[in-house]
Amino acid sequence: MALQPQPLSAYAGYAHFIVTSPSPSHHPFVAHVEINRPAKLNAFHEAMWHELRRVFQQLSADPDVRAVVLSGAGDRAFTAGLDVTAASEGGVLASAEAQGLDAARKAARLRQYIADFQECISAVEKCEKPVICVMHGISIGLAIDISCCADIRLCSQDAQFAVKEVDIGLAADIGTLARLPKVVGSQSWVKDVCLTARDFSAVEALSVGFVSQVHESKAAALAVAVEMAGFIASKSPVAVQGTKELLNHSRDHTVDDNLRYTGVWNAAALQTNDVAAALMSGLKKKKPTFEKL
Amino acid sequence: MALQPQPLSAYAGYAHFIVTSPSPSHHPFVAHVEINRPAKLNAFHEAMWHELRRVFQQLSADPDVRAVVLSGAGDRAFTAGLDVTAASEGGVLASAEAQGLDAARKAARLRQYIADFQECISAVEKCEKPVICVMHGISIGLAIDISCCADIRLCSQDAQFAVKEVDIGLAADIGTLARLPKVVGSQSWVKDVCLTARDFSAVEALSVGFVSQVHESKAAALAVAVEMAGFIASKSPVAVQGTKELLNHSRDHTVDDNLRYTGVWNAAALQTNDVAAALMSGLKKKKPTFEKL
Amino acid sequence: MALQPQPLSAYAGYAHFIVTSPSPSHHPFVAHVEINRPAKLNAFHEAMWHELRRVFQQLSADPDVRAVVLSGAGDRAFTAGLDVTAASEGGVLASAEAQGLDAARKAARLRQYIADFQECISAVEKCEKPVICVMHGISIGLAIDISCCADIRLCSQDAQFAVKEVDIGLAADIGTLARLPKVVGSQSWVKDVCLTARDFSAVEALSVGFVSQVHESKAAALAVAVEMAGFIASKSPVAVQGTKELLNHSRDHTVDDNLRYTGVWNAAALQTNDVAAALMSGLKKKKPTFEKL
Amino acid sequence: MALQPQPLSAYAGYAHFIVTSPSPSHHPFVAHVEINRPAKLNAFHEAMWHELRRVFQQLSADPDVRAVVLSGAGDRAFTAGLDVTAASEGGVLASAEAQGLDAARKAARLRQYIADFQECISAVEKCEKPVICVMHGISIGLAIDISCCADIRLCSQDAQFAVKEVDIGLAADIGTLARLPKVVGSQSWVKDVCLTARDFSAVEALSVGFVSQVHESKAAALAVAVEMAGFIASKSPVAVQGTKELLNHSRDHTVDDNLRYTGVWNAAALQTNDVAAALMSGLKKKKPTFEKL
Amino acid sequence: MALQPQPLSAYAGYAHFIVTSPSPSHHPFVAHVEINRPAKLNAFHEAMWHELRRVFQQLSADPDVRAVVLSGAGDRAFTAGLDVTAASEGGVLASAEAQGLDAARKAARLRQYIADFQECISAVEKCEKPVICVMHGISIGLAIDISCCADIRLCSQDAQFAVKEVDIGLAADIGTLARLPKVVGSQSWVKDVCLTARDFSAVEALSVGFVSQVHESKAAALAVAVEMAGFIASKSPVAVQGTKELLNHSRDHTVDDNLRYTGVWNAAALQTNDVAAALMSGLKKKKPTFEKL
Amino acid sequence: MALQPQPLSAYAGYAHFIVTSPSPSHHPFVAHVEINRPAKLNAFHEAMWHELRRVFQQLSADPDVRAVVLSGAGDRAFTAGLDVTAASEGGVLASAEAQGLDAARKAARLRQYIADFQECISAVEKCEKPVICVMHGISIGLAIDISCCADIRLCSQDAQFAVKEVDIGLAADIGTLARLPKVVGSQSWVKDVCLTARDFSAVEALSVGFVSQVHESKAAALAVAVEMAGFIASKSPVAVQGTKELLNHSRDHTVDDNLRYTGVWNAAALQTNDVAAALMSGLKKKKPTFEKL
Repeated sequence: MALQPQPLSAYAGYAHFIVTSPSPSHHPFVAHVEINRPAKLNAFHEAMWHELRRVFQQLSADPDVRAVVLSGAGDRAFTAGLDVTAASEGGVLASAEAQGLDAARKAARLRQYIADFQECISAVEKCEKPVICVMHGISIGLAIDISCCADIRLCSQDAQFAVKEVDIGLAADIGTLARLPKVVGSQSWVKDVCLTARDFSAVEALSVGFVSQVHESKAAALAVAVEMAGFIASKSPVAVQGTKELLNHSRDHTVDDNLRYTGVWNAAALQTNDVAAALMSGLKKKKPTFEKL
Repeated sequence: MALQPQPLSAYAGYAHFIVTSPSPSHHPFVAHVEINRPAKLNAFHEAMWHELRRVFQQLSADPDVRAVVLSGAGDRAFTAGLDVTAASEGGVLASAEAQGLDAARKAARLRQYIADFQECISAVEKCEKPVICVMHGISIGLAIDISCCADIRLCSQDAQFAVKEVDIGLAADIGTLARLPKVVGSQSWVKDVCLTARDFSAVEALSVGFVSQVHESKAAALAVAVEMAGFIASKSPVAVQGTKELLNHSRDHTVDDNLRYTGVWNAAALQTNDVAAALMSGLKKKKPTFEKL
Repeated sequence: MALQPQPLSAYAGYAHFIVTSPSPSHHPFVAHVEINRPAKLNAFHEAMWHELRRVFQQLSADPDVRAVVLSGAGDRAFTAGLDVTAASEGGVLASAEAQGLDAARKAARLRQYIADFQECISAVEKCEKPVICVMHGISIGLAIDISCCADIRLCSQDAQFAVKEVDIGLAADIGTLARLPKVVGSQSWVKDVCLTARDFSAVEALSVGFVSQVHESKAAALAVAVEMAGFIASKSPVAVQGTKELLNHSRDHTVDDNLRYTGVWNAAALQTNDVAAALMSGLKKKKPTFEKL
Repeated sequence: MALQPQPLSAYAGYAHFIVTSPSPSHHPFVAHVEINRPAKLNAFHEAMWHELRRVFQQLSADPDVRAVVLSGAGDRAFTAGLDVTAASEGGVLASAEAQGLDAARKAARLRQYIADFQECISAVEKCEKPVICVMHGISIGLAIDISCCADIRLCSQDAQFAVKEVDIGLAADIGTLARLPKVVGSQSWVKDVCLTARDFSAVEALSVGFVSQVHESKAAALAVAVEMAGFIASKSPVAVQGTKELLNHSRDHTVDDNLRYTGVWNAAALQTNDVAAALMSGLKKKKPTFEKL
Repeated sequence: MALQPQPLSAYAGYAHFIVTSPSPSHHPFVAHVEINRPAKLNAFHEAMWHELRRVFQQLSADPDVRAVVLSGAGDRAFTAGLDVTAASEGGVLASAEAQGLDAARKAARLRQYIADFQECISAVEKCEKPVICVMHGISIGLAIDISCCADIRLCSQDAQFAVKEVDIGLAADIGTLARLPKVVGSQSWVKDVCLTARDFSAVEALSVGFVSQVHESKAAALAVAVEMAGFIASKSPVAVQGTKELLNHSRDHTVDDNLRYTGVWNAAALQTNDVAAALMSGLKKKKPTFEKL
Repeated sequence: MALQPQPLSAYAGYAHFIVTSPSPSHHPFVAHVEINRPAKLNAFHEAMWHELRRVFQQLSADPDVRAVVLSGAGDRAFTAGLDVTAASEGGVLASAEAQGLDAARKAARLRQYIADFQECISAVEKCEKPVICVMHGISIGLAIDISCCADIRLCSQDAQFAVKEVDIGLAADIGTLARLPKVVGSQSWVKDVCLTARDFSAVEALSVGFVSQVHESKAAALAVAVEMAGFIASKSPVAVQGTKELLNHSRDHTVDDNLRYTGVWNAAALQTNDVAAALMSGLKKKKPTFEKL
């Protein structure tokens, strides 16, 4: 079934991202975000990551959205990462240099710059709705940082990945080194790809669990992602968003701490009408309807 | 070799669990716990999880038990999870509703209810003896919570798994979201199965490392589990129980913290006669005998 | 391409380890450390682990070394672990026994002994340069502790692994239980091999992600490791060593904590000339040269 | 105003503790627990701490109790700590000795014994209602462990305190070393009293913040404690018990973690009728009435 | 010396806060923020805390500001806390009520509302410049939340404090319960004032270390605060802001973690010209000049 | 009683520290360490802190030492901190400068230098025997770092303290910012003295709990410290050293974690003969004798 996307008017004002309802009649609560700079392989400049934060903050608060698909426009790349002209984060450094700042003052500027950049990308993770990331073609550098913030990763078989930062003389600082080791199981593999900056393929990504599915084309992967997003969006948003929150909390806390937090979370969440709606629909074999959250 | 189980008389008083010595002559220190409500697909009601806690507390303290196998009685299910009548945890909520409690007071009741429920299931993890869980047939909802508390998971090829809670309008709160992400490697897969509540098969469970072996039938899986439990039970209980404790500690602590704790733990544990017994038996090619712990 | 190793004179004084430049002309910044007690299957006694610490402390500080390969001399073993005469850590205990110490005082001695032993092995992890471990033949007990401190693990197909400690009556206390669960994804598998002390093969090690490559012989694995080390050593040491540090920090901290630490780290690291060098070499299609770190 | 206590019949079955309503007409929701072994200076034996746990578990769940006062019966002591015959925790050790257990097995017994003992005392902290501890006369050893679990500590001027454990050859293991450093500000003082086991007076206890008030007699301190408990019990139990929970959580978590937990907690707690009741009573200058929790 | 404040034009656009340079000629890098709603005892409504965040974010980034004084306008109050009409956080709840949301959906709204409110107040703590808080008159509820985010607290002798939340039926959720226990030493006192909501005076605040100085009037306290801020602002901003950051980090981390973070921080910070400037000025007995940070 | 110190021959080889038995007949297990560079106000250069580490490592392992007193030689200073010529940590920086290193490489050198410096000072904290620090006269900069590593702090009334680092353009990085906030209760005071670098007196130090006693002269303070050390040294070393370890662990862990660690620690420690010796001596009113640890 081909997608018949319609623009989401509330998101019409963004310059670098297209936000649509990919299949409005079948999957009413799904939003599709496309990184939209295909002529430059969807490479990011500063205005783009600031906009990315705003897009995902809006999605997070939007009661009409219950699941999000994130992909890159065009045939060639999910994203080639940082735009080369920004690659050395040189803008900040160059201006600090020009002002004759000492190394400590340059460091303060860089630290603030990195913290702001990190926060923009982390907005994908902080989005309270599940995010399914579809990667194809060139998917390097920032592509890994961004996709590690998504909940589920799919790709097409032509996807070509790399944690590229070492090759331009720096350690990845926008989230890959923080999240990738917690996203996959083999630390030997994580160290390998992060220390060598070598390419890895869709098949390799699947075998280590970085992506959970590989499809033959971007279109096929996207169709599956929309289907999955629609399936999730058809369920109780209280249940789905609680599950996302509790899984994210789990990553960074002990089991005991997470159990305690979960108990407090569900003490309110279980007082929802969705449980009754879900049970009733099960008995009646009808699709349940859930109120907006 | 067919198992020839004998009842363990110290555990005769339980209503919902059968506890036997599955192979008394070959594996003297192994206990086999069966969830025993096959007519209802071994679904759990409140009395059952309270009893589960008592069974595992007793096993934990029993010097005649050195390894435990946990499975479900009957052909159809390890467990179908919560009994439907309890499914919305409605008992608590309904009685709170009946008393006209405000939402904060309902939340207090729910929080205490969940904490007690969690503690019952966590008794499987807190059991100081290794627990090998054998799953077959329907293994959904609470089946995942319980099995994540076991040390090792095996299954038969007919096992059908699901983190089912989202489908009844709630986020899993009895341990799956706390432990599953730490039990397997691919977080993309964890998010997939937890957010969609979809089924997954024995083969998929094996490929992501949720189970470490798949066997052709429940009987075959059980036989392997008993063999494995017997093998573990033949070793020094000081060594085995220390290993379980230190691995569980490791999951929730930094490497440095675990190393320090391990040093303090082994400072006493190494003063055991078991090391000499193990070394001697190695030289003499005889099976060592270890005192009860 | 066969390796043509040359001794590294600064490391000539070690008794139990051979340290060479495995391929000086092609890979100028690579060091190869061999555990050198092949007649005893490279089994470790106390002097050896103290020396191991000194070797890796020297490598960590040596500006002429940018990547390290670690393997065992001879055909039969990476290492068979603890030398049997030391196996029960009996030296300490025996001398405490001889002095008539009470159990608390024996415990104090053991604790200090273990802490010192742990610190020696942890020196491999604390080495600021990436360490690639090549395992072949018998690789049991301490072999697992040591290799878990390396960044990347390769092996030959004849490698035979075991977390052997339970078989001599003790819980592994030199790092395996702290690190192995964080090195691979399937905890069911970790519990299995740690509680049973059973052997596992190169193929199994690969399938769970313990090693990231298997090669047909020790020589082949070693050649690949040197190549990989050389490749890493050809990159900016500021980028490579930062990546190692941030990945190690990530394992023991939350994502938020790691992001903050990363920002502070890179605030200084980005002020390197290596970024310019790397970018320039990319444009000029020439291999960049990086200053010593 | 002299107290006119009445027995609380639901607590009549305890052998070692008297539980009364100290001032039923004025302070309807207050319970007063007295350690009741004055002939032995309220020294504890094993049955007593097991009973202490049951008393506080019952108080925690009792909707008719909103604040608790804890004191010792008789004129001479809050408690002199462990009964001398139990002082070396010798019961466990002696029986282990008698069975000829090796040091590792003795350690296992001791560890379980200590964990159980700790859990009994921690029941005072886990009680969801505020606990005000009134100390007088001899208040040593276990007196410090217990009182550190209370929320607020008062004493009479004759109180004589000591962290006594070092004097009987052991490090305090029932909670003093875990909690005292977090209860007062000066670590130099904590180390002083814990390492020397010296006595300290009511005045010194006040000056370092261990107690927050000193009164001239036990009777006076008790009257103030009951008044304070009554005052707390007159307020919204949703607010009071939430405050206790969040403060206890705060001690063991970062500020960010506590803020997040607090938000989730209050998301349910603010949906109480108590806020309206409290605001209304403020406007009407009348004492509010709050439903049971 | 009387203060001769001048408005800071960059901060002229704020509606609820006055930001001045309190003593431009003597203390050029000091900013003074006044909560400016004296007719309502400086009580906060939602627009005010959103503006508070913007004020402190601007101060944090402003290179012309090196230390901040925060006080309340008028004679009667630092702040009386939440404006009564907002007191029950009822705006959110009321609108959720009006939409007929179930308790789980109300909880979601409340959680987001609290998180946003917390973040606004935390902006005072996150401001990279030291903040000295001067309290006078009524200083209750939110006054404690805000002042706990400041680095140093002074007050006038007429200051009247209370952690007031329990009296309106809720547990404080904007930071007091997270930070107050880490700001002062005596937890018995913290529990006392948080559970009773009783008033405490300037003298009591001083005796427990909540404030570090008490002065006879607001004017006197303010003059001292400005002097102190000016003194701090005369020092190296690299040193001062590093000290603030490292102390805040210390509160939420272990000693080992903080030492490691500090080493990485100072690796850049020590490359400042300020050290030379400070040492030189010491030798020359002249006041050093430091570049903007 | 005047002290009659005798040199401890095992410590005769140190250049910058005098180590004596301050009162061999009365307090046989006490060692007194004096910083011995009085002509330079006991200011530290690099060789001194390396030696300090060795002194305390030796004391930690020395079975003839059970408590340590640390003071500064001469009348004028405990220590004036870093020697001015080393003050900017300039040695490292200057040599890095001379080699033309970029800012990232300088940072790497500085980081390693600071880590090594921190580790030297932390050796005072890691010494397994209690350390009582006696401060007099000038006690600034490094004096605070070092004394925060001691267990108990005393001073003479002429002591003059300052956290001086901000005045030389840097944030304190050798431990003051990590430990001081955990040593005293008032964070307002900690921020005050750390951000202003102002002097504070013995009286102020006492009032905030930084020191626990003030005496009229260095001699008087020293006599009390030796008496206190002798008193501690007369007790069971198993109990005393366990208490120190558990209190240090407590500072950096949650209560639950510390309770668990304590249980494991005491499982071995309680198997000491010291408990029987202590109890027997109590009954016989004789001073107990404890074996060396």
